[in-house]
Amino acid sequence: MAKDQGAVRKILDKVKSEGREALTAPEGKLLCDAYGIPVPKEGLARSSDEAKKLAEGMGYPVVLKIVSPDILHKTEAGGVLVGLENAEEVSKGYDTILNNARKYKADARIDGVQVQQMLKGGQEVIVGAVTDGSFGKLVAFGLGGVLVEVLKDITFRLAPATKQEATSMLDGIQAAEMLKGVRGGEPVSREALADLIVKVSELVSDFPEISEMDLNPIFATKAGATAADVRIVVDFEPKESRHRPSQEEIVRAMNRIMKPDAVAVIGASSEDGKIGNSVMKNLINGGYKGKIYPIHPKADEIMGIKAFKSVKDVPGQIDVAVFAIPAKLLAGALIECGEKGIPGAVLIPSGFAETGNVEGQKEIQKIGRKYNIRLMGPNIYGFYYTPKNLCATFCTAYDVKGEAALSSQSGGIGMAIIGFSRSAKMGVSAIVGLGNKSDIDEDDLLTFFEQDDNTRVIAQHCEDLKDGRAFAEVAKRVAKKKPVIVLKAGRTAAGAKAASSHTGALAGNDKIYEDVLKQAGVIRARSLRDLLEFARGIPKLPTPKGENVVVITGAGGSGVLLSDACVDNGLQLMSMPPDLDAAFRKFIPPFGAAGNPVDITGGEPPTTYKNTIKLGLEDPRIHAIILGYWHTIITPPMVFARIVAEIVEEMRAKGIEKPIVASLAGDVEVEEAAEYLYDRGIPAYAYSTEIPVAVLGAKYAWARGAGLV
Amino acid sequence: MAKDQGAVRKILDKVKSEGREALTAPEGKLLCDAYGIPVPKEGLARSSDEAKKLAEGMGYPVVLKIVSPDILHKTEAGGVLVGLENAEEVSKGYDTILNNARKYKADARIDGVQVQQMLKGGQEVIVGAVTDGSFGKLVAFGLGGVLVEVLKDITFRLAPATKQEATSMLDGIQAAEMLKGVRGGEPVSREALADLIVKVSELVSDFPEISEMDLNPIFATKAGATAADVRIVVDFEPKESRHRPSQEEIVRAMNRIMKPDAVAVIGASSEDGKIGNSVMKNLINGGYKGKIYPIHPKADEIMGIKAFKSVKDVPGQIDVAVFAIPAKLLAGALIECGEKGIPGAVLIPSGFAETGNVEGQKEIQKIGRKYNIRLMGPNIYGFYYTPKNLCATFCTAYDVKGEAALSSQSGGIGMAIIGFSRSAKMGVSAIVGLGNKSDIDEDDLLTFFEQDDNTRVIAQHCEDLKDGRAFAEVAKRVAKKKPVIVLKAGRTAAGAKAASSHTGALAGNDKIYEDVLKQAGVIRARSLRDLLEFARGIPKLPTPKGENVVVITGAGGSGVLLSDACVDNGLQLMSMPPDLDAAFRKFIPPFGAAGNPVDITGGEPPTTYKNTIKLGLEDPRIHAIILGYWHTIITPPMVFARIVAEIVEEMRAKGIEKPIVASLAGDVEVEEAAEYLYDRGIPAYAYSTEIPVAVLGAKYAWARGAGLV
Repeated sequence: MAKDQGAVRKILDKVKSEGREALTAPEGKLLCDAYGIPVPKEGLARSSDEAKKLAEGMGYPVVLKIVSPDILHKTEAGGVLVGLENAEEVSKGYDTILNNARKYKADARIDGVQVQQMLKGGQEVIVGAVTDGSFGKLVAFGLGGVLVEVLKDITFRLAPATKQEATSMLDGIQAAEMLKGVRGGEPVSREALADLIVKVSELVSDFPEISEMDLNPIFATKAGATAADVRIVVDFEPKESRHRPSQEEIVRAMNRIMKPDAVAVIGASSEDGKIGNSVMKNLINGGYKGKIYPIHPKADEIMGIKAFKSVKDVPGQIDVAVFAIPAKLLAGALIECGEKGIPGAVLIPSGFAETGNVEGQKEIQKIGRKYNIRLMGPNIYGFYYTPKNLCATFCTAYDVKGEAALSSQSGGIGMAIIGFSRSAKMGVSAIVGLGNKSDIDEDDLLTFFEQDDNTRVIAQHCEDLKDGRAFAEVAKRVAKKKPVIVLKAGRTAAGAKAASSHTGALAGNDKIYEDVLKQAGVIRARSLRDLLEFARGIPKLPTPKGENVVVITGAGGSGVLLSDACVDNGLQLMSMPPDLDAAFRKFIPPFGAAGNPVDITGGEPPTTYKNTIKLGLEDPRIHAIILGYWHTIITPPMVFARIVAEIVEEMRAKGIEKPIVASLAGDVEVEEAAEYLYDRGIPAYAYSTEIPVAVLGAKYAWARGAGLV
Repeated sequence: MAKDQGAVRKILDKVKSEGREALTAPEGKLLCDAYGIPVPKEGLARSSDEAKKLAEGMGYPVVLKIVSPDILHKTEAGGVLVGLENAEEVSKGYDTILNNARKYKADARIDGVQVQQMLKGGQEVIVGAVTDGSFGKLVAFGLGGVLVEVLKDITFRLAPATKQEATSMLDGIQAAEMLKGVRGGEPVSREALADLIVKVSELVSDFPEISEMDLNPIFATKAGATAADVRIVVDFEPKESRHRPSQEEIVRAMNRIMKPDAVAVIGASSEDGKIGNSVMKNLINGGYKGKIYPIHPKADEIMGIKAFKSVKDVPGQIDVAVFAIPAKLLAGALIECGEKGIPGAVLIPSGFAETGNVEGQKEIQKIGRKYNIRLMGPNIYGFYYTPKNLCATFCTAYDVKGEAALSSQSGGIGMAIIGFSRSAKMGVSAIVGLGNKSDIDEDDLLTFFEQDDNTRVIAQHCEDLKDGRAFAEVAKRVAKKKPVIVLKAGRTAAGAKAASSHTGALAGNDKIYEDVLKQAGVIRARSLRDLLEFARGIPKLPTPKGENVVVITGAGGSGVLLSDACVDNGLQLMSMPPDLDAAFRKFIPPFGAAGNPVDITGGEPPTTYKNTIKLGLEDPRIHAIILGYWHTIITPPMVFARIVAEIVEEMRAKGIEKPIVASLAGDVEVEEAAEYLYDRGIPAYAYSTEIPVAVLGAKYAWARGAGLV
């Protein structure tokens, strides 16, 4: 059915002209009609014969309601009859209502009686739409009824939603089974429900002034889905639209900022303990090979490098300016950067929105826009880009190169990233502080890292998303190519409160974040350690080619815990085919456990690990392997580690690559073995059955979202 | 209302004599009557006047049903009328039913018409009882309806349940709010519902032959709760009861086993690589001061200690025998231990139930019972008891003394415990392997550690509980004194499958474990790391005196994540009183965030941490503190750590002790700071906001269960 946008426009214009904030029920119904959203059939009857005819046309039961501008309280006036089951009842009912109305108010103008299809049976559901400050238009779906409200069982998607996304919403609620028909109930038409969701999502997207919409209840049956009640709220104040450079502009600017040929340090200093001194030291000691221009009002030279009074005095081109001056001097220096044509500014200073200086932040944003300077910060530690040996930060230098690009909204979390990365030898391509996010934010980074060949995984800590919609759109594209992990702080009510007092950011409803991030294919980390471990482990693992996970374990006890962790992390323990089971049995003692986990038992020599792991890698039906090692004298930790690394290497040479993770149970020597394995591409953890499986689970979550598995 | 046990016995005897496995509906109703469980009122009317009278007595609406031994299909015969609202309808209905019956079967014997109270309105709920293989009788509670079935929203308690436990069940379901009256609905009578639950739990406990009971639905209203339908299943085969020594006997035997004055090593060996050699080495090198008797058929001396051919040849008393001989020789040697009067045997050898040798295991159990030897294992690594420097194991020696007693069902997990304990310098009092649990199990250990002054926290890994009821009973008592932590493996369907293939143990429904362990006051660890971190951290923390938790943080970003973690772990962020808020504000910059978290901001000197932490410790309204440290040049990690330790020490001297945990965000130096703090009683973690809060949450969970907070 074609959408009649003209009809909607006409009604909304009328509502606007009358200064109303909500539509009447009949207006709501007309909007639904215009978009093909099924509502109960109805019609106005002026005689009992007309009423009968209308009722026959829409099918029984029906409801009759008096239509009179002079009768406001219809029920009180005896002007409503429900559940009329046949022509006779309708005919009689028409007369009854008219009589009652006349008795109630003799001089009332009576326009007739409304005959309305009465919905019943099926499953009651709710479809709605809201306007979120960060994500914009969202469509929502849930079951109807009080119990569902109590359980807050509702799911969201960005509007407009595709048919596929709408269908995913039907499976996105806890009580999804209810729609499939339980206890002999009939399944509802998924087609009809998804279609209705899509139409609602299109209506609110086509007409941004519709700020809220509720279809509640909708009666969903095998045959279709009809909205019994429609509520629409409008807001005609247009939102200020955020400036969004094109993806090409972002790439161009971010490449100059992240991979500069020349860096200016505004507020460079020779004095130990000054931020401008730390930045200089990090640039120099970090091994950055590009040009460094210290900027200082008086110095001629800083740390052996010629200094300038202003960026405008620098003869060559500058790609990025790192600011290490007090907040109050920042605007002036930024204008000079603009006049010099510098495309990026790294604003380390604090003293802006986070301390209440909102005006100061607006001022620098305005300068940035005027001169087309992209701003990182303010209130940040700076950033690292290891492929260029670039440490544009006042923190310690970081030099373990790798493929993970991390960012944090908070400086504290940034320091934790640096410490963990160093301690766990996590190779990184970049660590970026975003702070107040006056301009550059997570989606700018995603756009840059998407095309950065030095980055294979992107992990971001954030407390809010200034433009969740832009983030989701970019993430959806990027996550198809590279895993994107997000730790969204302020998940919970208490956390969100702290978030808003921290950055003044309004943390959104967590369920919205949950659903939209998933819709975008983003892996959500539940804790700081998860963020860090996922960033470390995911790039190590090849992408699995299917869902069949096999656990091979020397410790039966680890096998049980690893199986628990598989379920917790959405991994599917392969149901073992008899021939494969028999093949494994050849290598393990007769009392070793059958099936999956493959329990090789504890007293086995290295060859048993070797043979079973090799079989697991070679059989094409197995797509991923989880190892459970048990420290014994017969197969000590490093013997195990070397064997595993050897087999994996041998298989790689044959072109066989499957994700393998390992859980090592044993005395302290297993720590060395874990490190040895990790260095060779096998995420391995001592004293933990849950972390390796969580890392594998995150890889799978990404691969599924990207349509690769 | 008194319980009429005689009435119940009479009915059950009849059911038994008739060889039935279920009660009829009227029988079920009689059982309910006998225990005062409300069921609909009913009576037999032999005239329309009698029917009216009965109906008046029970209140409208009512249901009428024909009572005739010759009419089986009542509805088909027109013998049922529902929803009769007044005397006239009842009177008419009586006649209608009689007429219908005569028309249906003219010669039918008609005993009269049953008049039954018709329940409606209120909230439909379900109360039931099941018999679990491990936990015995359990009472269950949930809401009625299909949606709740889909969501599996049901809660269990051991039967009989106290009134308080029954009341806790009403809050123990996700949809608990429904009982409180939502959307204008009336709240149900919690009193009546709890009372009904208690009575059901007593009925099934008093009559063990009732194996299953279902009251579904129960109509719960403001006024009461009435079961509309009763289903009772019986099982007259008595279960073989497990031998349970008295608590005194357990303490006596376990004290000799865990703190022996003399140990025999059966299968002691001088030969490197033999288990009997490892055990000897560990005993000697571990520093055990008691007598060691190597037992060997031929040797005169092993490792410089006089050897004996049999324990029976040893002149003195032996407290425990450690077995390091093949499975097939074990029974014979065990009999000799029995004849020698040794009260405990540590059975390291495998080759019993876990390899399918169930008969062999039964044989040694029988010997153990005959001679009253308590058996640890078989299929274990042995055990450590550090206060006696006792390493009765073939694993490496362990010597970091402390207050945590750990045990594991699996050897692999045992090795992980040893490795982690050593690596994290976790002081332990004991590490015990339980393996096949042919005799000694978790509740024996609880009973021992309860009275062991060297133990302050008990942490157990298990895959099943052979006698969940005994465990729950003992744990309930012990957990009041010392925290008990349990990692129940096989939590999930996949995990449970692996558990049953591993030990042949049937892992129970996880929801039952969840609820019963909570009822017993046990802290449930969700992962191996949680088990280990809780065991390490809990004894360090003093017991909190109230629920008010305050976060003091240098990193606003950590504050948000710490707040998230508080909600995840059931901790309550204190709502800050204005005067306390003002007191904190005195110490922090004007732009530091108000309330809780107390955000002191990142650039602050050590004194700011000092002043705020001191205030937090001194103000009696604050009961626990979570610190978020941010690594800066102004307050480096070790400076922070020393300051915190100093203040805590100072306050301890003044008698002020509150639990404090810390999350350290920074470069690698924070690892040293975390260790420094941990050593001084402040569980501190680098690069994690979630683990310190989880440890504090576990302490709180215990304190609440023990009624201390």
